[in-house]
Amino acid sequence: MIGYSVGIDVGATSIKMALFDSDLQLVSRNDENIFSDKYQLPEGFVSVVGDAVVNMLDKKGLPLVDLSGIGIGLPGCVDSINGTVRDLSNLPDWPETNIKEQMENRLDVPTFIDNDVNIMTIGELVHGAGKGCVNAVCCTLGTGVGGGLVIGGKLYRGTNLCAGEIGHISLFPEDEGCNCGNKGCLENYVGNSAIVERTKKMLKENNLDSAILSELIQNDTGLLTPKIIYEAAVRGDELSSFIWKQTGYYIGMAFANIVNILNPEKIIIGGGVAQAGKILFDSIIETVNSRAIPIATRDLQIVPAQLGEDAGVYGAATYSVRKNFHEER
Amino acid sequence: MIGYSVGIDVGATSIKMALFDSDLQLVSRNDENIFSDKYQLPEGFVSVVGDAVVNMLDKKGLPLVDLSGIGIGLPGCVDSINGTVRDLSNLPDWPETNIKEQMENRLDVPTFIDNDVNIMTIGELVHGAGKGCVNAVCCTLGTGVGGGLVIGGKLYRGTNLCAGEIGHISLFPEDEGCNCGNKGCLENYVGNSAIVERTKKMLKENNLDSAILSELIQNDTGLLTPKIIYEAAVRGDELSSFIWKQTGYYIGMAFANIVNILNPEKIIIGGGVAQAGKILFDSIIETVNSRAIPIATRDLQIVPAQLGEDAGVYGAATYSVRKNFHEER
Repeated sequence: MIGYSVGIDVGATSIKMALFDSDLQLVSRNDENIFSDKYQLPEGFVSVVGDAVVNMLDKKGLPLVDLSGIGIGLPGCVDSINGTVRDLSNLPDWPETNIKEQMENRLDVPTFIDNDVNIMTIGELVHGAGKGCVNAVCCTLGTGVGGGLVIGGKLYRGTNLCAGEIGHISLFPEDEGCNCGNKGCLENYVGNSAIVERTKKMLKENNLDSAILSELIQNDTGLLTPKIIYEAAVRGDELSSFIWKQTGYYIGMAFANIVNILNPEKIIIGGGVAQAGKILFDSIIETVNSRAIPIATRDLQIVPAQLGEDAGVYGAATYSVRKNFHEER
Repeated sequence: MIGYSVGIDVGATSIKMALFDSDLQLVSRNDENIFSDKYQLPEGFVSVVGDAVVNMLDKKGLPLVDLSGIGIGLPGCVDSINGTVRDLSNLPDWPETNIKEQMENRLDVPTFIDNDVNIMTIGELVHGAGKGCVNAVCCTLGTGVGGGLVIGGKLYRGTNLCAGEIGHISLFPEDEGCNCGNKGCLENYVGNSAIVERTKKMLKENNLDSAILSELIQNDTGLLTPKIIYEAAVRGDELSSFIWKQTGYYIGMAFANIVNILNPEKIIIGGGVAQAGKILFDSIIETVNSRAIPIATRDLQIVPAQLGEDAGVYGAATYSVRKNFHEER
C-alpha cells in the first residue's frame, strides 16, 4: 500500500520540500529555509535534508515508516537508474555522488532522483497542464532550454537517459557555435541572456521605437532582463514586442521539428521566459501551425505550465511512489 | 495460438507478398507478378490480392483457417487503427477506403495495415538491423525521406499516427519553401531529385573535377541518377564524392537534432539513396558525432538496413501477428 511521500526540489538557491498523502495531495510544506548553496558537499545535503524530512513528518505526528517514498529533482546530470548525480549546475563542488544510496542509508525510505526537467514534467503530467496526456512534451524556458518527453503516458528518458535536449535543436546549423559542440542551437536564441543580448543589439541599431523600455531601464542596458522587456512589451513598447515575437518565432521553428518527429498532443511550456504570456505564445503557436505538417497540428495544444514553482515538489513526490515513472533496465 | 501469416508490400510498381510460419520464418513468396498500378480501384486490389493469398496457401496445402493474420504496408496516409487509406502515392485514383475491412470481408482473416515506413521499421526491428533494439529510428532515403520510430521496443506512431516525419525536419528554416508548408526541409536537400539537381548545378559551376561522371552520363545531365553519381564517386570522381559527402552532412544535421531529442541506440538507414554506402555513412556519422550532445552519441550506432526490399513483407507479416505493434486507443 502506498503511504505518504516527500517531494524535494533542489533549485538554484533554495531547496523546496513538501509532504504528500497517499492520494498525492499536498499535506504540508517544509517551512525552514534550506539554501542549496550552503551544502558544499553531498554529506551535508543528505544530513540536513534528512533532518528536514523527519521534522516535517514529526509536525504531523507521522513516523518515518509511514513514508513510502522520497523523490528528488536536481539540476544537472542525473542517472535515475543508479541514483548518481554529477555536474550539478548550482552545486559545482560536488563530486559524482550516489544521492539515492546516501538518502536511503540515512532514512531507510525508497528514494528516487531525476533531473529537474523530468521531475517538472511528471508534476505537470499528473497534477498540472498535462493531466490525461498520453504523448506530450514539457519545455522549460529560462537560463537554458530544457525538455521532458511523455510517451505512452510514461516519461521517456532515452538510451543514455538524456532524451529531450530541446535547447540543442539546431535552428541555423551554419551559425555560431554552441558550448554543446553544435551550431545555432535554440538555447542561443531564446535563453535569458540571448534575449537580453538581442535586445541590447537592437537598442543600439535603433530601428524600432523603444522609448518605454529605455525609460524602464533608465537607459542602463545593464538592467535589461526578460522580465523588464516583457513589461515594456505589455505597455506597448515596439522594440520589446518585436523581441518577444521573434523569440516565439525561434521557439516555434524548433517546436515544428519536434511536432513533425513526435506528433505530441500537447506542448507544455514553463520557466521564467514563459511568463511573457500571450505575446510569446501567440507567436509560438502561429509559427508551429504554419511550419509543422498540418495533420500533426490538428489536435495539438501549446499551453503554459500550471504548477509554477510547485511543479518540482509535486513531480518529485509523484515520481517516488508511481512505478510507471521509474526507469527499467 | 499463432499460425501462419502473410506479409504484403504495396510498392511503387509491384506488390510483393510472402507467407511466413508461426516462427515468422519465410515459407514461400508469391511468384505471380502483381503490378500495383493495375488496380485503379480498391475493389480490384482486394479481389486480386485476396486470390493471390489463397493461391499461395493452396500451393503449400494450407487452408485459410491456418492463417492468423495478414499485414499490408502501403505508401501514403494510413490509419492503422481504423484500417483506412488515402492519398496513396502510387494509387492516386483510390478514394479513402477501409482496406482492413474489405480484406477481412473477403478472406475472414484478421488484417492490419500501416504505412510502408512503419512496416519496414517493424521488419528491420524484428528481423534485421534493429534486432534487440529498445529505442531506434528507421529512416528511408529515396524519392522522399521517411521515418519510423521505435520506443520501448514498440512502434511509436504519435497522436495523429503521423510521428517520424524526418523528411520535414527543417535544416535551413529561412531557405526555400517545401510542399509541406515548412521551409528548408531535409527532403529538399537529400531526396533523389534534390541530389540530381545539386549535381546538375555543380556540373554547370564546374568548380570540381567531374570527368568520370561526365563520361558515365555521356554529358547528358538527363541521365543523372543517385546511382550513377554513386558509381562515379566510387571510381574517384571528385564532384560526385563531394555530392555524397554533402548529402551525408545534411542528413547528419537532421539526425543530430533527432539524437538530441530522442537519444536512440540505433539509427537504421534504408532506401535507394542509402546504397551510396561508406562514403555517405562516414559523412553522416562524422556530422552526427560532431553535432549531437556527446553523451547521446556514446552508444549510438548508425547502420544500413539489412533486409533490403524484403523489409516490407517481413514487417507486414510480423505486424499482423505481434500485438505489441498494434496501436491501442
